[in-house]
Amino acid sequence: MNTHTPDELHPIGFIGLGRMGTAMAQNLLRHSIAMRVYNRTAAKAEPLVAAGAAHAKTPEDAVAAGGVVLTMLADDAAVEAAAFGRAGFGPRLGKGGVHISMSTIAPATAQRLSDLHASHGSVYLAAPVFGRPDAAAAAKLWICLSGDPAAKQRARPLLNLLGQAVLDFGDSPTAAHVVKLCGNFMIAAAIEAMAEAFTLLEKAGVNKAAAASFLCEQLFASPIYRNYGRLIADVHHNEVLFELILGLKDMRLVRQTADTMHTPMPLASLAFDRLQSAAAKGRGGLDWTGLALGARDDAGLPS
Amino acid sequence: MNTHTPDELHPIGFIGLGRMGTAMAQNLLRHSIAMRVYNRTAAKAEPLVAAGAAHAKTPEDAVAAGGVVLTMLADDAAVEAAAFGRAGFGPRLGKGGVHISMSTIAPATAQRLSDLHASHGSVYLAAPVFGRPDAAAAAKLWICLSGDPAAKQRARPLLNLLGQAVLDFGDSPTAAHVVKLCGNFMIAAAIEAMAEAFTLLEKAGVNKAAAASFLCEQLFASPIYRNYGRLIADVHHNEVLFELILGLKDMRLVRQTADTMHTPMPLASLAFDRLQSAAAKGRGGLDWTGLALGARDDAGLPS
Amino acid sequence: MNTHTPDELHPIGFIGLGRMGTAMAQNLLRHSIAMRVYNRTAAKAEPLVAAGAAHAKTPEDAVAAGGVVLTMLADDAAVEAAAFGRAGFGPRLGKGGVHISMSTIAPATAQRLSDLHASHGSVYLAAPVFGRPDAAAAAKLWICLSGDPAAKQRARPLLNLLGQAVLDFGDSPTAAHVVKLCGNFMIAAAIEAMAEAFTLLEKAGVNKAAAASFLCEQLFASPIYRNYGRLIADVHHNEVLFELILGLKDMRLVRQTADTMHTPMPLASLAFDRLQSAAAKGRGGLDWTGLALGARDDAGLPS
Amino acid sequence: MNTHTPDELHPIGFIGLGRMGTAMAQNLLRHSIAMRVYNRTAAKAEPLVAAGAAHAKTPEDAVAAGGVVLTMLADDAAVEAAAFGRAGFGPRLGKGGVHISMSTIAPATAQRLSDLHASHGSVYLAAPVFGRPDAAAAAKLWICLSGDPAAKQRARPLLNLLGQAVLDFGDSPTAAHVVKLCGNFMIAAAIEAMAEAFTLLEKAGVNKAAAASFLCEQLFASPIYRNYGRLIADVHHNEVLFELILGLKDMRLVRQTADTMHTPMPLASLAFDRLQSAAAKGRGGLDWTGLALGARDDAGLPS
Repeated sequence: MNTHTPDELHPIGFIGLGRMGTAMAQNLLRHSIAMRVYNRTAAKAEPLVAAGAAHAKTPEDAVAAGGVVLTMLADDAAVEAAAFGRAGFGPRLGKGGVHISMSTIAPATAQRLSDLHASHGSVYLAAPVFGRPDAAAAAKLWICLSGDPAAKQRARPLLNLLGQAVLDFGDSPTAAHVVKLCGNFMIAAAIEAMAEAFTLLEKAGVNKAAAASFLCEQLFASPIYRNYGRLIADVHHNEVLFELILGLKDMRLVRQTADTMHTPMPLASLAFDRLQSAAAKGRGGLDWTGLALGARDDAGLPS
Repeated sequence: MNTHTPDELHPIGFIGLGRMGTAMAQNLLRHSIAMRVYNRTAAKAEPLVAAGAAHAKTPEDAVAAGGVVLTMLADDAAVEAAAFGRAGFGPRLGKGGVHISMSTIAPATAQRLSDLHASHGSVYLAAPVFGRPDAAAAAKLWICLSGDPAAKQRARPLLNLLGQAVLDFGDSPTAAHVVKLCGNFMIAAAIEAMAEAFTLLEKAGVNKAAAASFLCEQLFASPIYRNYGRLIADVHHNEVLFELILGLKDMRLVRQTADTMHTPMPLASLAFDRLQSAAAKGRGGLDWTGLALGARDDAGLPS
Repeated sequence: MNTHTPDELHPIGFIGLGRMGTAMAQNLLRHSIAMRVYNRTAAKAEPLVAAGAAHAKTPEDAVAAGGVVLTMLADDAAVEAAAFGRAGFGPRLGKGGVHISMSTIAPATAQRLSDLHASHGSVYLAAPVFGRPDAAAAAKLWICLSGDPAAKQRARPLLNLLGQAVLDFGDSPTAAHVVKLCGNFMIAAAIEAMAEAFTLLEKAGVNKAAAASFLCEQLFASPIYRNYGRLIADVHHNEVLFELILGLKDMRLVRQTADTMHTPMPLASLAFDRLQSAAAKGRGGLDWTGLALGARDDAGLPS
Repeated sequence: MNTHTPDELHPIGFIGLGRMGTAMAQNLLRHSIAMRVYNRTAAKAEPLVAAGAAHAKTPEDAVAAGGVVLTMLADDAAVEAAAFGRAGFGPRLGKGGVHISMSTIAPATAQRLSDLHASHGSVYLAAPVFGRPDAAAAAKLWICLSGDPAAKQRARPLLNLLGQAVLDFGDSPTAAHVVKLCGNFMIAAAIEAMAEAFTLLEKAGVNKAAAASFLCEQLFASPIYRNYGRLIADVHHNEVLFELILGLKDMRLVRQTADTMHTPMPLASLAFDRLQSAAAKGRGGLDWTGLALGARDDAGLPS
């Protein structure tokens, strides 16, 4: 049994201090987890250093041999660079080390990283999360976990401080990433469904707000439909909780993963095209609910 | 103010005694609503007659001048025939009469019926419902209502005996039907989204049951995702709660309505094609969650 | 054997004097075919009357018992009204009469008309055409023919004066209409294919005119690709040879026919949605190559 | 002016001896072009060595400094490996050398190769071809060319021996590849269009062979429609002229290129999904006209 508090032997490394990463790191500091933090733009580390974290100058500098490091970075390339690029942490992490990888990345990238870690004696854990920055700050993330059993046992006390639940999807270094991509795809699909439905309601002269409220809050009775549905019914996409261009990246990963698995996903292609079109029209900086504007455009409604 | 209990002046007419209609009529009888029932296949009326309803030989025979009649029939043609076909109830219903139309039909059909009723002095109320037979039996339907205000006031006491909520979408004879079609479309879209996602999970070797459970019950936290998601993850479509061929009919109505409104709905077309393909493959008698088999077929998985 | 020249016994009736119908009727007059012409807007009959045709005041007035009548009207409703609406020609045509129906209409409508004719002793021949007004004027239409063998034999001498070839698709009153719809669908599909390809070329900075010319005139080496391809590459859709809104109507008929046959046609739905969106954006009066604007819009290119 | 016959100074290198490459190399030998040939599976070089070519043991061994090398390989990875992988020809080719790249590859790959060549003083020419092995054998290929003007001038005499026409798309190292991908996409789109149309004809009981012949040979009057149309109407996909799995690869390149250019191409996604589904169903080894089986499957027709 794991009798010690979370990884008391070493400070952990924390790499990637965007809105999500900073909120998560703050939660760990709040529980007195010793931490060395790194971000490419160093200024973003300041609030955490003020809260007690040590500042690392490179990814390598953030980790200790045999230690634990969390990454919360923007995309596959950033994770690969931090782990095994110049001054990457992978080689130093070495034997007994654990890389808890919490970004949304391709299963294929995860497999590559897992193989590289294995060649250094370290372990790759897939631990992507669901939740926006407010959920991260409230330690209400859903964390999908998969990978080596012993490493999972070591990671759990830390992950428990970050989320409302940790879901275990087995021993592969990729499974949790597939689940994460499926979840984001299902949300994008729900956005498109609401977009088409609410456009039809508006064109038909029905009270859109009332209908949307009923459909999302009573019929579907889902927080996702409720929260997204309001924004779509109000055509309100300027408050950016998750940038459209990142949603496009995620749907790209879904399509690439589906391709690898010989799985046609026409609805994923539809969602991808909606986001791609939004980007082409200069809407890449909107919240990703801006996906919904495509249905309005097609129907000749103003956006 | 409406001081009398539900339509105490006349027995109401109830037309259409399939699984849904029978369950609804039983609920009304349970509350001592006097009723004349009609069904094309007369045998289906027997349980209700045993419970106290009068048996009508024709739709016309089910109604009283100025009374109230509910229809719960399979499709647009059946409603039009019952109301204004041979021995239809429309002419007799006449001045002051109210037709509470609870089937899922096209707004265009509702408008036609409303115009015909108007020419006889009667009123058409749109009152389509969400819920499967078990919800009908438990008086847990969601009832979408729109139409003439006075008629709505008269209908409400009856409708309150049938559902957990009556949602008012204004004074048009079509609005509630648009909302109903949007709801069914959104459910079909969710089925397709789950079908593609769960197919990808299976092809990727992920624990599909665990992932589906997390995605539907925790992430989406929606009864619709939970109930449909289990059937889709289990590839279990033989227990028929809503026949696939009826789902196909509903998506046809969605497409026709969208066409009338100049509203492209590519996701509705995708769902329609999935159901159409299922019908072409001989699966029209499955539960409509069989829509999900298309994604499996495309990916080369057994069904 | 048919020894007499085209229907010398009676003047034929010609109903529907739009651009196509007028050009066709002129060709028949040029070959001294006696003719009674009808058009809802009577003024359109004047040039033909000047050229020797008799003017009919109603559809009925255009036909003789046992004679031949051609219809070249805008849509299904217009053909049904002319044949069996108020003052329709069907009843008078009667025993031995032949209705040569040259508009693009639904096979289901053709079947209904065929049944009605049969009940009056007359025969319905399907004879839809390919070709724009210039081809009609030059008697270079392609005429697809199907229906009763004896009626086809009687119609052929007339049809030979109108087209470069008459293609026989058997004895059913619907087959030629299915072929016609398939042809229009294939052209719409080619427009969408060119639209997407040329958009990609433009976004990639490739010489679009040169590439389009090679692809259409050399690789595909097809008059359809050449003629449509130039308009699409030039984003030139204001010269109306076939109105977009009529193309939308035709794709609607394709979808309805496919529905009847339980045949999913996702590419037909894509083409339909492009035209529907164009109509919603106020482009219904453009040439139907304006279908191609959808791909440009989606890619953020000006239109 | 280029007064010497094709590249008389050096033997040229020819890399990639599949069905296409072998037919092309034979044509060059027939015109007494001195040649060093390389193929990963060495046995495939034997017929060419018998016809007078020299056998190279590595890609590097096939080229001379400042010389010309043609590649006709299966995919992007193979071209990159031959040029700049282990024993790649790139470094030896060096200053003044020209790489004529005739495979169907991504513009992005071409740009990478062009940059690598530039760093060695050599030049990358894009020269992908249209035509199947029989066209290659008859020197009837269409060759799309783009890149450095002087290198194009040097390549032309060779290319003229291989094709019926060489089309110049300007000075970029990528443009000709974009044109090639657009052409293959347009062919795939035409296959899907025919597949849906012919499926509808069959379901409607129309004489499919007659209708297909009219539509392809008369209405479209295109060799591509005629040749592909017969195979599709006959459901005959076992004679492999271009393997389905390679068509899937090409549509993948189309989608990737469209993604780079922010260009939604829903029809390309439909074609891609059809091919992906075929691969998932074990049809990857059919001719790529097997794309057409998807529409049949969806309509419940046997394949």
